[in-house]
Amino acid sequence: MLSVNDIKGLYAITPTPSKPGAERWDATDTVDLDELARLTEALVQSGVNGMVAMGTTGECATLTNSEWEQAAACVIETVRKRVPLFVGTTALGTHEIVRRNRFILDLGADGTMLGLPMWQPCTLDMAVQFYADMSEAFPQLAIMAYDNPGAFRFNFPPPFWAQVARRAPTVICTKHGPDPMISALIGMTQGKIRFLPHIAGAYAMARIEPEHNIAFWATEASMGPEPALALRDAIDAGDWARAKAIDTDIGYTMQTFFPPGGMAEFASYNIQLEKIRFDESGYCKAGPIRPPYHVIPDTIEQGARECGRRWKALRGKYG
Amino acid sequence: MLSVNDIKGLYAITPTPSKPGAERWDATDTVDLDELARLTEALVQSGVNGMVAMGTTGECATLTNSEWEQAAACVIETVRKRVPLFVGTTALGTHEIVRRNRFILDLGADGTMLGLPMWQPCTLDMAVQFYADMSEAFPQLAIMAYDNPGAFRFNFPPPFWAQVARRAPTVICTKHGPDPMISALIGMTQGKIRFLPHIAGAYAMARIEPEHNIAFWATEASMGPEPALALRDAIDAGDWARAKAIDTDIGYTMQTFFPPGGMAEFASYNIQLEKIRFDESGYCKAGPIRPPYHVIPDTIEQGARECGRRWKALRGKYG
Amino acid sequence: MLSVNDIKGLYAITPTPSKPGAERWDATDTVDLDELARLTEALVQSGVNGMVAMGTTGECATLTNSEWEQAAACVIETVRKRVPLFVGTTALGTHEIVRRNRFILDLGADGTMLGLPMWQPCTLDMAVQFYADMSEAFPQLAIMAYDNPGAFRFNFPPPFWAQVARRAPTVICTKHGPDPMISALIGMTQGKIRFLPHIAGAYAMARIEPEHNIAFWATEASMGPEPALALRDAIDAGDWARAKAIDTDIGYTMQTFFPPGGMAEFASYNIQLEKIRFDESGYCKAGPIRPPYHVIPDTIEQGARECGRRWKALRGKYG
Amino acid sequence: MLSVNDIKGLYAITPTPSKPGAERWDATDTVDLDELARLTEALVQSGVNGMVAMGTTGECATLTNSEWEQAAACVIETVRKRVPLFVGTTALGTHEIVRRNRFILDLGADGTMLGLPMWQPCTLDMAVQFYADMSEAFPQLAIMAYDNPGAFRFNFPPPFWAQVARRAPTVICTKHGPDPMISALIGMTQGKIRFLPHIAGAYAMARIEPEHNIAFWATEASMGPEPALALRDAIDAGDWARAKAIDTDIGYTMQTFFPPGGMAEFASYNIQLEKIRFDESGYCKAGPIRPPYHVIPDTIEQGARECGRRWKALRGKYG
Repeated sequence: MLSVNDIKGLYAITPTPSKPGAERWDATDTVDLDELARLTEALVQSGVNGMVAMGTTGECATLTNSEWEQAAACVIETVRKRVPLFVGTTALGTHEIVRRNRFILDLGADGTMLGLPMWQPCTLDMAVQFYADMSEAFPQLAIMAYDNPGAFRFNFPPPFWAQVARRAPTVICTKHGPDPMISALIGMTQGKIRFLPHIAGAYAMARIEPEHNIAFWATEASMGPEPALALRDAIDAGDWARAKAIDTDIGYTMQTFFPPGGMAEFASYNIQLEKIRFDESGYCKAGPIRPPYHVIPDTIEQGARECGRRWKALRGKYG
Repeated sequence: MLSVNDIKGLYAITPTPSKPGAERWDATDTVDLDELARLTEALVQSGVNGMVAMGTTGECATLTNSEWEQAAACVIETVRKRVPLFVGTTALGTHEIVRRNRFILDLGADGTMLGLPMWQPCTLDMAVQFYADMSEAFPQLAIMAYDNPGAFRFNFPPPFWAQVARRAPTVICTKHGPDPMISALIGMTQGKIRFLPHIAGAYAMARIEPEHNIAFWATEASMGPEPALALRDAIDAGDWARAKAIDTDIGYTMQTFFPPGGMAEFASYNIQLEKIRFDESGYCKAGPIRPPYHVIPDTIEQGARECGRRWKALRGKYG
Repeated sequence: MLSVNDIKGLYAITPTPSKPGAERWDATDTVDLDELARLTEALVQSGVNGMVAMGTTGECATLTNSEWEQAAACVIETVRKRVPLFVGTTALGTHEIVRRNRFILDLGADGTMLGLPMWQPCTLDMAVQFYADMSEAFPQLAIMAYDNPGAFRFNFPPPFWAQVARRAPTVICTKHGPDPMISALIGMTQGKIRFLPHIAGAYAMARIEPEHNIAFWATEASMGPEPALALRDAIDAGDWARAKAIDTDIGYTMQTFFPPGGMAEFASYNIQLEKIRFDESGYCKAGPIRPPYHVIPDTIEQGARECGRRWKALRGKYG
Repeated sequence: MLSVNDIKGLYAITPTPSKPGAERWDATDTVDLDELARLTEALVQSGVNGMVAMGTTGECATLTNSEWEQAAACVIETVRKRVPLFVGTTALGTHEIVRRNRFILDLGADGTMLGLPMWQPCTLDMAVQFYADMSEAFPQLAIMAYDNPGAFRFNFPPPFWAQVARRAPTVICTKHGPDPMISALIGMTQGKIRFLPHIAGAYAMARIEPEHNIAFWATEASMGPEPALALRDAIDAGDWARAKAIDTDIGYTMQTFFPPGGMAEFASYNIQLEKIRFDESGYCKAGPIRPPYHVIPDTIEQGARECGRRWKALRGKYG
């Protein structure tokens, strides 16, 4: 069973590559398993510290159940426990989540990346109870809580983390932030939960809490992991000047990524923008976007393409 | 194939009754099919004009896939096309919705009550494209669009309806409103879509547009349909004084139903409040609430219980 | 002292016309008092039933204190109690509102159109206490509560109205809705408060509650009152066919008025859009928009201009 | 004229103390000028680096105009340019803000703490134009932009700062954050604007950008400045272990400060909570809360009182 101390370094988040035609409403069997296995293997071999599959970027929402099962099995078998692997099992209800958790646990996943059921917005009590139930149900399956307030219409406030730390012992980490008030959260949770920021905040968070913030996540790894690995190594080495320089380089690649409407607009185009920049980078073939999210204005798409090109160029520098 | 002109009168919305223990995370096979069949039959025999199953109240979100299939089959077989039946097929992605639509169409449902994929909030273009695709995919399956802005984080604005009327011909009705600006919507959609208000707005809407607003929906029918049938008949007869009196009586039953935090708080307790008042009315056994929504403060629960008692009393008056 | 029974018919809402250059940051003394007096006199003589000045449309927010005093005095003196007049006195704090209320009361205004202090969003308790305090402070000054949830970040929920009806007896009417659930509000407030819808909902509301909904407001009157007067007369006469036809005609003029982003975007351009359509109609010279709201994209402006032209054409039909 | 390089260290934010009875709607002349002068003098003598008066905490919203003028004059005369002083001049319209800016500039203030007109939410274009106009109007008056997204319904996104840095040269600093993505903002604004976090984020921000984040603000200074001064000194000295320890101590005092509803609820009780903890600390007599914000539930009030007691205890440690 993974523990909080196992969570360190770079966690790569991957798409679930799709076959041609996957954007059509009548497409079936859309997962490009060969490309999924190839990408997963490439990332593990590159030296990433952990993997996260079938989150938002992995199109967990728009895969059919059988596609989800095929993809989950493919990733678990490819990783073969060489690094910690979290597979997304979020669904609309607890019972379906139980079924999915059992499926991945039986196949050998270390953990689940798990958000909240979202049909009704959970209250604080519902959200804590949900994670407590999942801990009770699967004491051997680690949970990376998926802290996405917009999607789940839940703010994941400090009291949530304090209660989860007490009542849901399998929650060992979370996608969260970056959050400058991290020190208070670490205190409230007695260090039982590692808060992983996005790569864009990894340097900042490591400066604030260098002993705690030793891990971060990056969908960007699916455009080629080299800049992310370089950042990880600089942080590990405490080479802050180099870490800041890499942070600045990475920031440059993202200048064109977010749409003009900011995070509110990003919420409608998250999947699209990720897959488009992955494809543009050339590091993997993310493929068409599954419906209904295959719709995107050209101006917004171009920002993601430019991001993909800039990242590709950055790989040359840090490769 | 149903058309807009077939949609009139009272549409009863039903729960998916659950067996004891259904609130537990380890429950499986939770649908009380006997009670579901009994309730459905009772409502059809009572004279309701149409049925809607497996919406929010029907716990579409927290049924497992196999439970959803069993419940859908049960309802379709019980109704046997005696009245129009809309079965909820909303899911997180288009491909899963296609699968569900096919399932109910093959079994003989007339239509689907269909909301939007909700992981990412749909833009106007995505939402219109989604319904247009479903019309293209299933030209024989009528759609009752599920206009729930809070859940789907989409406002269903006037331009949406104008475009859906042109591009998605199987969308023949929608849960919507009540909306005093209905006349403009009817104009924009050329009367191709019937806008069904909740029973609490049925009288009001019938006064504004007596030729259009000849249909409404009521989860309340699952507490006993008599008051709702009486309202339908008064509206049909143009007996406005009686309709207004019934409307006032129904309004009284609802005074305690909504939690103090208003609609924002209701969004977290919708399922719970419906099932609790159904049970309290004694008309059906809605059973325990499936997780993670089995959590509710006692003060909020009491309001729903009082509503159930008031409705039960009202049945005596109109039965 | 006005009572709820005095509130009937058409309430015209007016701008505070501005002199050339009013859009500049260094403008002072910007009110075109001649045009304000002329417009006010023209509306009173046209037969409107009441007047509302210095609301959002009257640029209450961006007038300096001395401009506000000049404009308030001008309107009060022009109307000379021939029709009920409500002058906007909303400000950021209770003490300033007290000062403004006293000012207009001393000059002879019948009432204030009064929203909530908005720096911090009021809770239910604060909002009720505020109106109760204003009733205690000015028992001779009627209040038209300004129910604008977006601006004041307060939802004006049913319990608010129930409590205001008990604790703030001078609140005799409100800009509200249109709201199809009006019957419940009338019941909760024992008929002590008249709920005035916008002209676009006047027909609909009169159908639902013909005895209560005998009054409505229209900024559109400042483009020429004839269509609004015709609608008022048709509703008064119970000539529903004619009322509906006028409603449809008025609806046509508004098709281009709202910006593509809906009410959320309208909130940033409310003043601009009103003044622009007033100017385009030719009925009054609303003049430049006071800063910082003088900024508006051309595409949004064009919709308001088209609305002004359509209204002008409609005046010919009903004049 | 102040420049960005002058902004460093601890900026104390003060209340505008009120006389007994100030919470009544009929109170007039509510400012306790003696206590305002005493508090201001005490803070300047204690060694704070700068002062901010008449922001939210200073009840800018609920002072009458003449009270605001008295208080502004009192603070300016007391400070006598010994440290930089920013006086809040936010109002509902540009013209009134111009008047207020001129008032404080004539009396000798160095700068204004300036938010956005809030009646209509400003768009990006309006907001940038507003600050650009204020820079043109008052080239000698420094601006601390008041970045409060909730109050002003404007998100102050990165493009806003990039444009303000180009078009509004007198904007030299802002209350902002804490924000872990600060590095990108510094880059976009070429270092022309100093971003001041709240004291609770001062340590964190100083770790991320030690050369830029050399200043922070603290309303807490009005409970006694010693802990804030100790934090400032530790950061100045690069003594990160001591800075972190002080940060932890300060975090402890705030554990009870925020209401259970989080920042959304805090927005309705911001003024109240600040004044209550100030009074409880005994360092100043903040006095009653001006209406309509004198309403607060006892449970929420108790959290602020406990915060005041904890801060008072902390002064003993760092005094």
